[in-house]
This record gives sequence, C-alpha cells and structure tokens, in this order.
Amino acid sequence: VPVAESSAAELVAAARSGDRGALARLLSAVERGGRTAHAVGRAVYPLAGSSYTIGLTGAPGAGKSTLTSAVVAAVRARGERIAVLAIDPSSPYTGGAILGDRVRMGEHALDDGVFIRSMATRGHLGGLALATPEAARVLDAAGYPWVLIETVGVGQVEVDVAGAADTTVVVVNPGWGDRVQANKAGLMEIADVFVINKADRPGADTTRRDLESMLDLTGPGDDRWRPPVVSAVSTTGDGADAVWEAVVAHRRHLEQTGGLAERREQRLRDELALIVEQRLRAEAMQRLEAAGRRALEDEVVAGRLDPWSAADQVLGEAQN
Amino acid sequence: VPVAESSAAELVAAARSGDRGALARLLSAVERGGRTAHAVGRAVYPLAGSSYTIGLTGAPGAGKSTLTSAVVAAVRARGERIAVLAIDPSSPYTGGAILGDRVRMGEHALDDGVFIRSMATRGHLGGLALATPEAARVLDAAGYPWVLIETVGVGQVEVDVAGAADTTVVVVNPGWGDRVQANKAGLMEIADVFVINKADRPGADTTRRDLESMLDLTGPGDDRWRPPVVSAVSTTGDGADAVWEAVVAHRRHLEQTGGLAERREQRLRDELALIVEQRLRAEAMQRLEAAGRRALEDEVVAGRLDPWSAADQVLGEAQN
Repeated sequence: VPVAESSAAELVAAARSGDRGALARLLSAVERGGRTAHAVGRAVYPLAGSSYTIGLTGAPGAGKSTLTSAVVAAVRARGERIAVLAIDPSSPYTGGAILGDRVRMGEHALDDGVFIRSMATRGHLGGLALATPEAARVLDAAGYPWVLIETVGVGQVEVDVAGAADTTVVVVNPGWGDRVQANKAGLMEIADVFVINKADRPGADTTRRDLESMLDLTGPGDDRWRPPVVSAVSTTGDGADAVWEAVVAHRRHLEQTGGLAERREQRLRDELALIVEQRLRAEAMQRLEAAGRRALEDEVVAGRLDPWSAADQVLGEAQN
Repeated sequence: VPVAESSAAELVAAARSGDRGALARLLSAVERGGRTAHAVGRAVYPLAGSSYTIGLTGAPGAGKSTLTSAVVAAVRARGERIAVLAIDPSSPYTGGAILGDRVRMGEHALDDGVFIRSMATRGHLGGLALATPEAARVLDAAGYPWVLIETVGVGQVEVDVAGAADTTVVVVNPGWGDRVQANKAGLMEIADVFVINKADRPGADTTRRDLESMLDLTGPGDDRWRPPVVSAVSTTGDGADAVWEAVVAHRRHLEQTGGLAERREQRLRDELALIVEQRLRAEAMQRLEAAGRRALEDEVVAGRLDPWSAADQVLGEAQN
C-alpha cells in the first residue's frame, strides 16, 4: 500500500510506537522518492537527531553481511537496539536488492530490538546519496539509537556512504595490501575504523602491517584521530566486540572534539545542495520534453546538431 | 598549456595529422570539463563516428590492465591501430589516476600505433559519464579505428562504461562464481563478452560452468546474442587473441542486426539528457549562492527549517 501524503504523520507516529509494518512502509516511500518521500522527510525531520549512524563498507566478497550480523549480536548483548540498512547500489537494472531481507535477518529474525532492511537505489547514485540519509533519519525518528548502513562499494559509492555516517568502518581482507588497488587512497581517507575480516586466513599480519604503515604515512587527519585496525572473523563472531568498541571510541572522540556536530552540519549542507540539484534534474527532463525531445535527439543522432548546441536550445541559452 | 577555445579546431587538426601532444591536450581539456571541453566537443563531433569502442571492466584486482596490454598486442599483431582510455573513477579525493600512463604504457611505449591515456574523474561520476564518451570521440576524430575504455568498477561505474561502449567486456577471475557477489546481476546484463582472466588458477572450470549456467538461465537478450566466455592468462598473453576475436564477432553481430546503430542512438539520447542535467547542476549552485546559501544552511542546521522547505525557497517554489 503506497503512503498517501496525508498519512505520513500517522505512519511516523505508528512507527515510533513500535509498528514495524509502518516503519517498513515509510522506508519504501523514501526508496521510491518523489513527493511522498518529501512528505515523510518533513514529518521525521523534527523528530530525528538522537541516533548515531555507522557506515560499513568494503569490496564485494569482504564479508560485510556476516560482519554486520556479528556486530548486531554484540550490540544486542549490551542490551541496545539497532537498525541496519543494507544498501545495494549495484543492481541498477533489476531495481531490487539481491540478498533479500529474509536471508539477512538470519539469527536476528525474531529479535524485536533489531530492524533490518535492504534498500536498492532504483538505478541512480544521486538517488542513493539522498535516500540513504533520509532512510537513516526515519530509523532515527522511529527510536533506534544506532543505525548501521552497510553497503558494497568502490569509489563514489563508498564516499556517499561515508558522507551519510557519523563513523565509517572499512572492511578489508588478508591480501588486500598485496595488490595495487585503485581505491586504496579513497578508502584511507574515509575510514574511521579498519576491520581486517577473515583474519584467520594467511596474510592477515602483512595486511595489518601495510595498513599501519599507510596510516603512519598519512598521519592523523585534521580531527587528530588515527583509525584503529581491528581483526575479526565474522563467521565465528570473533572480533565483533572489538569492532564495536572501536566504533564507540570513535564516537566518544567525535563528541569530545566537536567533530560530530561538524560532520553533521556538513552533511546537511551537502544534502540541501543535492535536493536542489535533484529538483532541477526533474525540471530538466520536463524542459527536454517541452523542447520536443525526440525531434532534437533525432537531429543529434543524424549528426546535424551536436549535443551541446541541442542543450543550448533546451535551456534557451545563447550558443557559446 | 590550457586549450583556448579558439584553438580547439587547430589542435584537432594537429591531432588528426598525428600530433600526439595535441591529442593529449585535447583529452586534458575534456577531462577538465567546462566551456573548453564543449568547444573541443563541438570541433570533434562532425569528425567522429568511424571508430569502434570497447569497454573493459571488472572488479579491482581482476587483472584488467595486463589483459588490456595483451589485447593491444593482439590488435597490433593484426596491424591495426588502437587507443586505450584507462578510467580511474575511484579516487575522488586525489583527483588523479594512481597508475600513471608511464606504467601502463609498458611494452607499447614506443609504438606509434598505440595511444594510452589515463583519465581521472575529478570527483564526480556524472563527470565520468560525460567525459568518457567525449574523450572516446576525440580519439575517434584523431583517427583511431579502435578505442578501448578500461575501468575498474562496481555497479554504476560499470554501467556508465557499458553505456559508452559498443561492446562491453567483463573480466572475472576463478572463484568469482563461488561467492554471492552483489553485482553479479548487473554484470550479466551489461556483458557482451566474458573473460575468465587468470584462468590458470584453480577454480576456472567451476567459474566457467557457473557463468554458462547463468547465461542458460537469462537466455539471449533482445539482440539474440549470447555472450561468449573466453579464458585468458593475461600475464602470458594466452587467450588475448580469443578475446579480440570475440569482440570482433560481437561487432559483426551488431552490424548485421542493426543493433550497433540502435546502441549508438540510445547513447546520444542519454548524453544529451546528461548535458542538460550538468548545466542545470551548475545553475543549482548559482541559485543556492544567490538565495543566501550560508544563511539558509544555518537555518537547516539549527533545525528551524527542513531541507525540502529550504530547497523550495531556493527554487522559488510554493511549499508542497
């Protein structure tokens, strides 16, 4: 059942009182985007701000899902509630997450203190960058003190996730340090905590040395935080507690230095720019249609018009 | 030396007569974007259209660079000229390709029939999606009959590359089929040719079986083409010829079925929409500044205004 605009506030109230179906419907509305998503956004905005978000990212096959599950168990053992958003940006054509929520739920399926949700991005990274913080805010408003955003990613996707989280955990595997991986530099810049997952495999020590020496080289950032390197074997749960302790330590650091407020401010500024951009994008499509999209395109395809001049015509600009 | 708008045509003429320095400057202009890139785009547009583009993509560590090098050798052995664009979308912060052109050139460094160029994306995937076809068009206008676009990628990046190429080659390794990789479905949809690289390693047979049975399941697409699965060991050059033969076979198929013209048309339509979008993005930034960006942001940060209502103010729209 789609969410009518008028009912956004009602659904939010229901979700806050523990109705998981209402929460799921709010997240579906966010995922779909558009006016209803905005209505949901407006309804939750004043209610959000008390939860803490963790981004967990790494290459495909790094064992992020099992690590997430082990970390959730560690959080639950402390008696705290947690929500998980599993983002799948890599399936633009199918428009759906490949690993269903049921598979992911696993051991936590019957635990009321855990809410797990897969989210696909419906084909656009701009969509992910906007939908992720919005979904996190819905979970925040619904009363989850911890929100973990798990995503597979390379490059821009990881950066987007880091942009949506208070603390970013980067998961690598033994052997990671051996190859020149194009995204190493980017990962070094977004990681607040490194996890060497599958640390019972050969090469874990070398990977740790490599990571530590890279951290020696880059030095602590402006925020004077050196990302700890935690070893884990997520299939057995080993190290999950240590991962969580590192997250909590980073949170404490951010709170004590004022870095948390700073990061959140910057995120809101970026989000505003992105919303403006997204609206203009919708406008662009409208203008293209109004300018006779098909006929213009045909001119370009026939080679009679280059695409920049066609864009000039759409936007009513002088040729330049 | 930056390219003055007036000199774009001169540089294009020089590049067409074999001046590699001029070609490099044109590509730098495209990479930087903006007005000069548009001038270059307009200058090359009527001259392009005779070269064939191949996208080569796969996960980090799959051995794409060595495979590219081996394929280039196979093409050269046939006496044909080829240009390579190595896209590095994963370094948004550093703004530069990590593997320099000199490293990539390797055995082809002194061969006039090969032009290799690394391109970074300066921090935005939208930039990649626009810059890649534009750069390919420059190489086309410069007279290279084959343009190979190599990129590391997951998800959207791979899709962008597939969108820029006539034939898309997806590189996997033995063991790929063993794990649930989130981007499998996306890869199945963009691949015209599969290469199992490092096929001398254990598990190659299993990976081939997995791929073939997935291809059995999906069946040939609308274009009645079943992607061949080619084994290669790019470090020795084994299989590079077979990879190239598969590319040539796919080209022949596309030409015979009319699929090539169709793909190219769709690409141009998408490119036009993207150019319009990019211009509007620049406009969004201008409007944000004009609306008093900082003050509006401060209202949002203070929680007095939600970001959607702030966007309404920027765009001069009624609240909805």
